[in-house]
Amino acid sequence: MDIVHFPSLEDINQASKRIAPYIHRTPILKSSAIDHMAQCNLYFKCENFQKVGAFKARGAANAVLKLPKAILPNGVATHSSGNHAAALAKAASQVGIPCHIVMPRTAPKVKISAVEGYGGNIIFCEPTLEARELTLQEVVKETGASFIPPYDHWDIIEGQATCAMEFLEDRPHLDALLAPVGGGGLLAGTALSSSYLSTNTKVYGAEPEGADDAYRSFQAGKRILMVEPKTIADGLLTSLGERNFMVVMELVEDILTVNDEEIIDAMRVIYERLKVVVEPSCAVPLAAVFSRKELFEGKEVGIILSGGNVDLSKLPF
Amino acid sequence: MDIVHFPSLEDINQASKRIAPYIHRTPILKSSAIDHMAQCNLYFKCENFQKVGAFKARGAANAVLKLPKAILPNGVATHSSGNHAAALAKAASQVGIPCHIVMPRTAPKVKISAVEGYGGNIIFCEPTLEARELTLQEVVKETGASFIPPYDHWDIIEGQATCAMEFLEDRPHLDALLAPVGGGGLLAGTALSSSYLSTNTKVYGAEPEGADDAYRSFQAGKRILMVEPKTIADGLLTSLGERNFMVVMELVEDILTVNDEEIIDAMRVIYERLKVVVEPSCAVPLAAVFSRKELFEGKEVGIILSGGNVDLSKLPF
Repeated sequence: MDIVHFPSLEDINQASKRIAPYIHRTPILKSSAIDHMAQCNLYFKCENFQKVGAFKARGAANAVLKLPKAILPNGVATHSSGNHAAALAKAASQVGIPCHIVMPRTAPKVKISAVEGYGGNIIFCEPTLEARELTLQEVVKETGASFIPPYDHWDIIEGQATCAMEFLEDRPHLDALLAPVGGGGLLAGTALSSSYLSTNTKVYGAEPEGADDAYRSFQAGKRILMVEPKTIADGLLTSLGERNFMVVMELVEDILTVNDEEIIDAMRVIYERLKVVVEPSCAVPLAAVFSRKELFEGKEVGIILSGGNVDLSKLPF
Repeated sequence: MDIVHFPSLEDINQASKRIAPYIHRTPILKSSAIDHMAQCNLYFKCENFQKVGAFKARGAANAVLKLPKAILPNGVATHSSGNHAAALAKAASQVGIPCHIVMPRTAPKVKISAVEGYGGNIIFCEPTLEARELTLQEVVKETGASFIPPYDHWDIIEGQATCAMEFLEDRPHLDALLAPVGGGGLLAGTALSSSYLSTNTKVYGAEPEGADDAYRSFQAGKRILMVEPKTIADGLLTSLGERNFMVVMELVEDILTVNDEEIIDAMRVIYERLKVVVEPSCAVPLAAVFSRKELFEGKEVGIILSGGNVDLSKLPF
């Protein structure tokens, strides 16, 4: 672990300027009713209002815009069926390059349409890890496209870091900052920006009990991969990446876990009181604040609402 | 109709300062996907994020804060089971005076709890117009409370006008501004602010076909009361008030009507694309923009999202 390899404050500043024309500067919302429930002063940074409905637009835009000019026209490629796929397709279309997305044949239609809607070229594969990686390798070989992974990549982490940078510009006196953790792109970026911009903000990852590899890795001091994750928070099923783990071990205060019942309760509170549409993963940090009141009581607490891409006909309440 | 009785620009400015500590300055959201669908440049002012979840917080706060000191301690009273009741209860509690709300015995539990949650004192009556008005008269006589009607009152209209004032401060170049119309508090306030602050912004009311008294009144040039309204937009069932009608006739460009199917479609677009929780009434202006594309094509168009108090277990999609 060598901190000199982490993106610097200047790197994140540059990323922020680079992606500014391609993303929204998202607003921060408050609810006195939720403050009362949580017994602290909460601020919600609404990345569910971000382009493609998730913070992933930041990292994808940054990674695409940093590609060397010589290989840029070959486009980009990734394997994903979630928000990263949509974000990469959108970023690629914004600069006019091709984007190849490897997806399992079994991917839900709504996710396929989202990527197609942003102009992505979908290549279907069998729904196994081997097929996915093999297909991606073939695509990269054939097209010369650059592989942009969803979280374990410094340009991605640097891009996601711009979210906490904006947050701390708008609200410099946060005692705590919480982000959900799946692969760890958002959490690592949040921890980096906070370490540069604030001396007293503690950064917490919030994770579902049914996909708690980050919690276990953090406790063990080594990466433990997730096997058979099971949680309603379908954006947080992946295991923490290598680079992400390094940043988390160095700069994150703690990983807090919550169960699905707590996630659903917090999700309902966000819909009913904050009046915004969020995906279940989004509700994990608020659930953590509710379940660990002693950590946050009376404090100024920031929460990143990570995304709002949800099937409204399947709300869990 | 004498325009000298309308609240002046100075009155609205004063109202804006008066209520500032009690309300949120709500953000304006955009969605390029919705712009693409509507073929114009849309801005959404999010009063669903307002205190008590609706623009009604503005008028109620203004009316309460303008009460003469001598009668202020007697409190306020109204008959309503909707957002105005909650807004008045909240405004009263903020200045520490009693608030009496006359409600039919048949009011839904969720609305009763909302008013109780804001500290309102509920007096139940039989579910008839006569019982409601008689009960209110008794309450006012007994307590000395001031009756604050939901829309047909200059202090209420003045308060609601602060919303469009903020909108035009943030977006001075709107070609059109749309608000839903029920009793007409928001629409009249919007038209007033726009008439003072912009020379080229046309103000439209948007109304459900099943409660189209404002449309018919506007066409006829005289108030026609609504009999048996029937629409999913349950915040817009009331008839246009007298003062509201005067302002609408003088300053509104047109009233546009849409059917419930169009309202539900637009509501879904707001949830899916703008990622915010709105009540059906809120979706009426966007439905009007979709159905009258020729009026708005290529223009800068502002829409006031009026409120977000909705039973999430009964979403119509």
